[in-house]
Amino acid sequence: MLEKYLPADVPAEKRKEFLNILEEVTNSTGRLMLFAGDQKVEHLNNDFYGEGIPADDHNPEHLFQIASNAKIGVFATQFGLISRYGVDYPDIPYLVKLNSKTNIIPYEAKDPYSEQWLSVNDVVEFKKYSGVNIKGVGYTVYLGSEHEHSMLKEAANIVHQAHKNGLLAVLWMYPKGKFIQDEHDKHLIAGAAGVAVCLGADFAKVKVPYENSQFKPELLHEVVQAAGKCGVLCEGGKKINEEEFLKELYEQIHIGGTRGNGTGRNIHQRPLKEAIKMANAIYAITCENKNTQEALKILNS
Amino acid sequence: MLEKYLPADVPAEKRKEFLNILEEVTNSTGRLMLFAGDQKVEHLNNDFYGEGIPADDHNPEHLFQIASNAKIGVFATQFGLISRYGVDYPDIPYLVKLNSKTNIIPYEAKDPYSEQWLSVNDVVEFKKYSGVNIKGVGYTVYLGSEHEHSMLKEAANIVHQAHKNGLLAVLWMYPKGKFIQDEHDKHLIAGAAGVAVCLGADFAKVKVPYENSQFKPELLHEVVQAAGKCGVLCEGGKKINEEEFLKELYEQIHIGGTRGNGTGRNIHQRPLKEAIKMANAIYAITCENKNTQEALKILNS
Amino acid sequence: MLEKYLPADVPAEKRKEFLNILEEVTNSTGRLMLFAGDQKVEHLNNDFYGEGIPADDHNPEHLFQIASNAKIGVFATQFGLISRYGVDYPDIPYLVKLNSKTNIIPYEAKDPYSEQWLSVNDVVEFKKYSGVNIKGVGYTVYLGSEHEHSMLKEAANIVHQAHKNGLLAVLWMYPKGKFIQDEHDKHLIAGAAGVAVCLGADFAKVKVPYENSQFKPELLHEVVQAAGKCGVLCEGGKKINEEEFLKELYEQIHIGGTRGNGTGRNIHQRPLKEAIKMANAIYAITCENKNTQEALKILNS
Amino acid sequence: MLEKYLPADVPAEKRKEFLNILEEVTNSTGRLMLFAGDQKVEHLNNDFYGEGIPADDHNPEHLFQIASNAKIGVFATQFGLISRYGVDYPDIPYLVKLNSKTNIIPYEAKDPYSEQWLSVNDVVEFKKYSGVNIKGVGYTVYLGSEHEHSMLKEAANIVHQAHKNGLLAVLWMYPKGKFIQDEHDKHLIAGAAGVAVCLGADFAKVKVPYENSQFKPELLHEVVQAAGKCGVLCEGGKKINEEEFLKELYEQIHIGGTRGNGTGRNIHQRPLKEAIKMANAIYAITCENKNTQEALKILNS
Amino acid sequence: MLEKYLPADVPAEKRKEFLNILEEVTNSTGRLMLFAGDQKVEHLNNDFYGEGIPADDHNPEHLFQIASNAKIGVFATQFGLISRYGVDYPDIPYLVKLNSKTNIIPYEAKDPYSEQWLSVNDVVEFKKYSGVNIKGVGYTVYLGSEHEHSMLKEAANIVHQAHKNGLLAVLWMYPKGKFIQDEHDKHLIAGAAGVAVCLGADFAKVKVPYENSQFKPELLHEVVQAAGKCGVLCEGGKKINEEEFLKELYEQIHIGGTRGNGTGRNIHQRPLKEAIKMANAIYAITCENKNTQEALKILNS
Repeated sequence: MLEKYLPADVPAEKRKEFLNILEEVTNSTGRLMLFAGDQKVEHLNNDFYGEGIPADDHNPEHLFQIASNAKIGVFATQFGLISRYGVDYPDIPYLVKLNSKTNIIPYEAKDPYSEQWLSVNDVVEFKKYSGVNIKGVGYTVYLGSEHEHSMLKEAANIVHQAHKNGLLAVLWMYPKGKFIQDEHDKHLIAGAAGVAVCLGADFAKVKVPYENSQFKPELLHEVVQAAGKCGVLCEGGKKINEEEFLKELYEQIHIGGTRGNGTGRNIHQRPLKEAIKMANAIYAITCENKNTQEALKILNS
Repeated sequence: MLEKYLPADVPAEKRKEFLNILEEVTNSTGRLMLFAGDQKVEHLNNDFYGEGIPADDHNPEHLFQIASNAKIGVFATQFGLISRYGVDYPDIPYLVKLNSKTNIIPYEAKDPYSEQWLSVNDVVEFKKYSGVNIKGVGYTVYLGSEHEHSMLKEAANIVHQAHKNGLLAVLWMYPKGKFIQDEHDKHLIAGAAGVAVCLGADFAKVKVPYENSQFKPELLHEVVQAAGKCGVLCEGGKKINEEEFLKELYEQIHIGGTRGNGTGRNIHQRPLKEAIKMANAIYAITCENKNTQEALKILNS
Repeated sequence: MLEKYLPADVPAEKRKEFLNILEEVTNSTGRLMLFAGDQKVEHLNNDFYGEGIPADDHNPEHLFQIASNAKIGVFATQFGLISRYGVDYPDIPYLVKLNSKTNIIPYEAKDPYSEQWLSVNDVVEFKKYSGVNIKGVGYTVYLGSEHEHSMLKEAANIVHQAHKNGLLAVLWMYPKGKFIQDEHDKHLIAGAAGVAVCLGADFAKVKVPYENSQFKPELLHEVVQAAGKCGVLCEGGKKINEEEFLKELYEQIHIGGTRGNGTGRNIHQRPLKEAIKMANAIYAITCENKNTQEALKILNS
Repeated sequence: MLEKYLPADVPAEKRKEFLNILEEVTNSTGRLMLFAGDQKVEHLNNDFYGEGIPADDHNPEHLFQIASNAKIGVFATQFGLISRYGVDYPDIPYLVKLNSKTNIIPYEAKDPYSEQWLSVNDVVEFKKYSGVNIKGVGYTVYLGSEHEHSMLKEAANIVHQAHKNGLLAVLWMYPKGKFIQDEHDKHLIAGAAGVAVCLGADFAKVKVPYENSQFKPELLHEVVQAAGKCGVLCEGGKKINEEEFLKELYEQIHIGGTRGNGTGRNIHQRPLKEAIKMANAIYAITCENKNTQEALKILNS
Repeated sequence: MLEKYLPADVPAEKRKEFLNILEEVTNSTGRLMLFAGDQKVEHLNNDFYGEGIPADDHNPEHLFQIASNAKIGVFATQFGLISRYGVDYPDIPYLVKLNSKTNIIPYEAKDPYSEQWLSVNDVVEFKKYSGVNIKGVGYTVYLGSEHEHSMLKEAANIVHQAHKNGLLAVLWMYPKGKFIQDEHDKHLIAGAAGVAVCLGADFAKVKVPYENSQFKPELLHEVVQAAGKCGVLCEGGKKINEEEFLKELYEQIHIGGTRGNGTGRNIHQRPLKEAIKMANAIYAITCENKNTQEALKILNS
C-alpha cells in the first residue's frame, strides 16, 4: 500500500527494507509522527531549562525516556546524542539529524549555513555495527541564505545516499534571510515543499502557514499539492495549549492533507509521564486515525 | 547522419549508445525539443500556482503526465523529482538537471551560484540499477557571476563525464550579474553560446535575442555561428499566445538556424490535454519538419 | 562501573580498549584531570615567559617533565610537540589537541576559526608505529563564530573517529564572537555543554560560570545537567592562589557535579618540583577523592 | 640538442616522448609557435564577430581549418572545443588550455580567478582513448590577484602532472589587479617570467614590454634572463599591420632572446587562406630561421 | 649524537635515513646553513636585477652554480626551479619550499595566504624516480593572517608527512597582518618559534629580534628557549656588509643559541666566485666551528 511512496533510487535489494521502515514508522498509514529532539544545538539550553520547563527536561536522557516509552514514529536528534545514549536505548526508532547550528548569530546578522556533520555512510556503518535502530536521516535547508547552494547540494546527496541504503530522508525546509518577508506565507511554504520533492525527500518539515497571523488548515492545500509525493509535516513550534495543539494537528492532517508532524517542545517540556501521554495523543491522531477527542482522552488518561 | 555531432571524448565503446540517444531524442533531425521542468526550484511555486494557472499544474505529477503522453525530446528536471516519480514513469526520456537555485535572492543583491547537486556518476549508476530512461544531463552556467569560475569548472566536468558515459550534455548559458546590461543582446548571447561549445556541450539553452525589445530570427545568426557544433536552443520563457509562440519557434529554427527549444511554462501551464497538444505541436515543428499551420492544427485537434 | 560512559559508536572490538583508557585516565572515578599544555600556540609565549613565570617554564620540555613526574589524567597538547619530545617521554598519557590558533587577531576583529590540523587516523597510526602512549584527542569549538559550522563538522567527525578507534574525545566548548555578551553566563555555558553531548564528546571543557563576576558551585548544576553523559571539566584559567584554586576545584566536583578539570597555567607556571606537587594536589581531589585540606598537604609536602 | 630543456620531473620512461614532442612542436629549434585560440571564452564573441572581422571567423571551425592547414607549433584551446571538433581534426598538435574566464567582470571590479576546468589526467586519458594528438597543456596565472594562491597551486600541479605524463606545460603569466600599475613594465614581466620558471613551466606567455608605450626588443633581456630555462613567448595581442607584426616578432626572437610567440587574433581574424599564410609566415620566423623579408614573401605568396 | 633531535613521528624504518640527512646537512653539528633561493616568487625579480646586483644573478642558474660549488647545508627553493635545473645539478642537497607568494599585494591591503603547491608525496616520489638529492621540505606560516588556520593545517601536515618519509621539515615563521606592531619584537618571535615546535618542525626560520631597532644576541635567548628542540634559524635579510653579517651570525649562534641561519641575498647578490666564498664563510661559522676572523679569511681568500 505504501509502495506508491517508493522512490526509484532505492535499489531493488533495498526496497523491502525501505518499505518495512516506512510501514513501521508510519504504522502503515504513510503518516509520520516525528519527535524532534535536535534543539540542544539549535536553541542551546533555552528549551530545556527555564521558566515553565520541568526539571525532568534539564537532562538529555529525558528525551530518550520519552522516546522509548511513548508511541512515536521516529526520534530525530544528532548522531552524538544517539551515540551517548544508544547503548541504553538501542531500540528507539531513530532519525539522525545530520546538520545543526546554534542560535547565537541572529538571522538578520548573517545568512545561516548549517553544514552536514557526518556522512550517510557513517550512519549506515554505525547502524550495522552498533545495532542501534536507525530508520532514517534528516537535514535542514535554509532556502534564501547565501549558502543555499551548499545546503541544496548536501541535501540532494543525503536523500540519495539514504535511499541507496534503504533509509528514509526527511528535510527541514526553512526559508531564511533578509529576502524573506513572512515565513508563514503559504505560497513561500509551498515553494519550499516543492524544493523538497525536487530533492527527492520522503518528508518535508515546514512552518505552519498563516493568514493574518492565523492558521487555517485550507492554507495547506497549496503546500501539500506542491509537495506531491513528498509528505508534508508541520512543525510543532513553541509549547501551546494541548487541546489547541491536538485540534490543529487533526485539521492539518484531515483538512490540510499533511502526512504527519514534527513535534519537540510540545512533548518534552513536560514531566516524563505527561510527555509520554502527549506523545501518545499526537501519535494517535497521526498514525492511529483517532480524532481530537480520542486523543485528548489519551492525554488525560 | 548525426555522426558529425559526435564529440571526440565519447569513447569508442560508447559511441553507438551516444548516437542512438541523439537519434532518439531528436527524431533523427539533430534538433532537440527539451521540455523544461526545473522551475519548482528555480521559481519556487510561482509557475505552478496562481492566476491563470490551471489546477492540474499544482501537482508535480502533471509534468510527468505530460512527458509520458506527449511527444517530447527530453524532459529536464531535478534528480529527486525523477526519483520520486520514476517508479511510475520509467520510460520518459529524462535529462537530469544537475544544478538549481531558488529565486529568493535577487540577482542585483548577490551574484548567483547554482552548485552541482549530484555527480554524473550518480546519474549513470542510477540509470543502470533503476531502469529509469535517462538520456542526458543538464547544468546552468551564470557567466559574469563572481562564482563563474566554479560553474565553468563544474560544467566542463559534467559535459566530459556525460560523454565518457555516452550521455548527452545540455548547458543553460545565462549571463547574469551587475555587469550585464541587456540579457537579450545578441552579441552577448553569441558569446555565451561560444562558451558552451568551448565547454563541449551538445546543446546550449540561451535567451532569445532582441533588437529594440523585439525578437527577429536573423539576430540568431551570430549566435548559431558562434556555437558551431553545439546546437542552440532558445528558451521558451513566460507563457504567451500559442500561435505567436509556434511561429516564433518555426522562425528560430528555419531562419535563425537553432537546433531546437527549451520550453516549460508554455507547455505545463495548461490542463493536461491541452498541455499534451501544445507539446506535440512544438515537437512537430522541432522534430517532424512541420510548419506553423500544421502545428496549429495539432494544437487545435 | 564506567560502562555507563561507553558510547554506542565504539565498536565491539574496541570497547575493552576504550573502557581501559577511561579507567586509567580517570583512576576508575570517571573524573578526568586534564593537564592543558596547548598554550604555546593559543597564547604564543605569553604563558611561558614574563613577570612571575619561573625560568623552568621557558622551555617546552618543562611540560613533559611535569607530565612524566606528576600524577595526571592526560597531558593535552599539539601533535608536533608530542612528536618532538615523544621519543624521550613515550609513557605520558597524551591527549592530542587537534586544532589551535594564535591570539594575534582579537575576537572583536574577526570571528575565530581554529581548523583541524591532522586527522584522527594520523594519530591512530602514529600511536601504533611510535609506541607513544596516546589516550585520546581534543578539539576546540567556537560556538557563535561565523565559522561555527566548520568546527561543528570537524568536532562531530573527530569524536566519531576517536570512538571508532577506541580513543577518548574531549571538546573545548567556547562561545565567542560579537553576539556573546558574557562568556561566564551559566545558561550560555550550559548551552555549550549541551552541544558537546550532541557531538558525542566524552568530556567538555568549559568556562567557569559566574554570577556577579563570582563563581558559585551551584551555578554548575544547569551546566552539568545539560551535558548529561558528557563529563564537564572547568577550565583552570589564569594562575591564582593555590588554596583558592583547590577549594574551588573541590566545590566544582562535589557541589557542582563536574567530572574533572582542565588546568594549565596553574600547574606549569611554577618551578618543576612545585608544579609536580600542584598537579598531584589537583589529581588528589579529582581522582583520589581527597578533600581540599588533604590536597593542600600534598602541595606543601 | 633539446635535452637541455628536459625537466627532472619527466620520469625516465617518458623522456623520449617528452623530447619527441618538444622537437616536433619546435621543429627542433626549441622555439614554439603557439596558435592561441582560447578567446571564445576569454573575450566572448568580440574577437570573432564585428567590424573588420571576416565571416570565416564567425564559426569556431575556422580555427581548426587554420590549424590543420597551416604550419604551427601547437593550437591552444579549451578541451571542449577540441572534443567537439577532434573527430574531424585529430591530427592538429593541440595544447589543452585548462582554465579560462570571461571578460564580463572588469579587473578593476574584482580580482580574477580563472579556475582549472579538468585535470591533466583527464587530458592524458582522452589523448589515449580518442587518438587526438595532444602535445601539452596550458594555464593562466593572474599574479597579484587575491586568488593568486589558488592559481599558483593549480599551475604547479598542472606543470608537474604534465611532465610526469611526458607532456609540455605552457603558462600564461599575467599580473592583474589593483596593485599593478603597468602591465607592460619590463621588470614586472621579468618577475612574472621568473615565477613561471619556479613553477617548472616549459614556456611562459607574457605581455610585450614597453618603454614609453613602445616596444624595444632590448627590454626583453631582463625577462628572458629571469626566465632561465623557461622559454619566453610574447603574446600577439590585438591585430596589427602584418609587416610590423613580423618585424617585431623577428626582433623579439633574435634581439630579445624569446623562444617563440603566442598569436591568436593576428592569425584568425582573416579569411582562411590569408590566415594560413600569416600562420606560415609566423612559423617561418619562429621555427624555420627565416627573416622578416622571407616571411613577408610567404605571406604575400 | 643528533638522536636527541629525532622526532617520534619518524617511523623506525626511516630513522636511519632521517638521522643521516640531519648529520649530512648539519655536518654533524645539528646546525643548518640554509641557502635561501625562493625569492624569485617572493620578491619577483627585485632581488635578481637592479642597482648593485651583478649580472651573474640575473639568471636563475646562478643559484644552482653557487649551491653546487659552495659548502651549504641545503638549498631551499621551489619544486619547479629544482625540476628545471635538476637534471644538470642533481647532487645539490635540496630543500623543497612548498609554498610561495608574490609581493604584489601589500600586507596592509590583504592578509597573506601562501598556499601549499605540491604534496610531500609528490616530493618523495620525485626524489625516488629522478635521483635528485632532496633532503627536506619547507613552508611559510603567516601567523596573525586571517588565513592562519589554513597555513597551520598545511604546516602540521607537511611536517608530519616529511617525517613519515624520513625528510627534514623547516618552517618559515612570520607573523604578519594588521595586528602585528613590530615584526622584530623578541617576544613575538619567541611566540612564533614556539608555534613551530608545536607544529613539530625541525627548524624554524624567524626574523632577527631587535631592541630599539638594533640586534643584540641576548634577545635570542627567549626565542631559542621557546623553540625547545626546534632549531632556530635567523633570516639573512637584505644584503649588508660582509664582516658585520658574519659577526652577527657568529653571535646569533654562540651567544644567542640559534642552530643556523637562512641566507639568500647576502650570498647570491654577488658574482659567482664571491658568492661561493661568502657561502663558504657562512658555512664555516655555522657548521665548522670557525670564528668570525677565520670566516673572513675564507671570504677574502
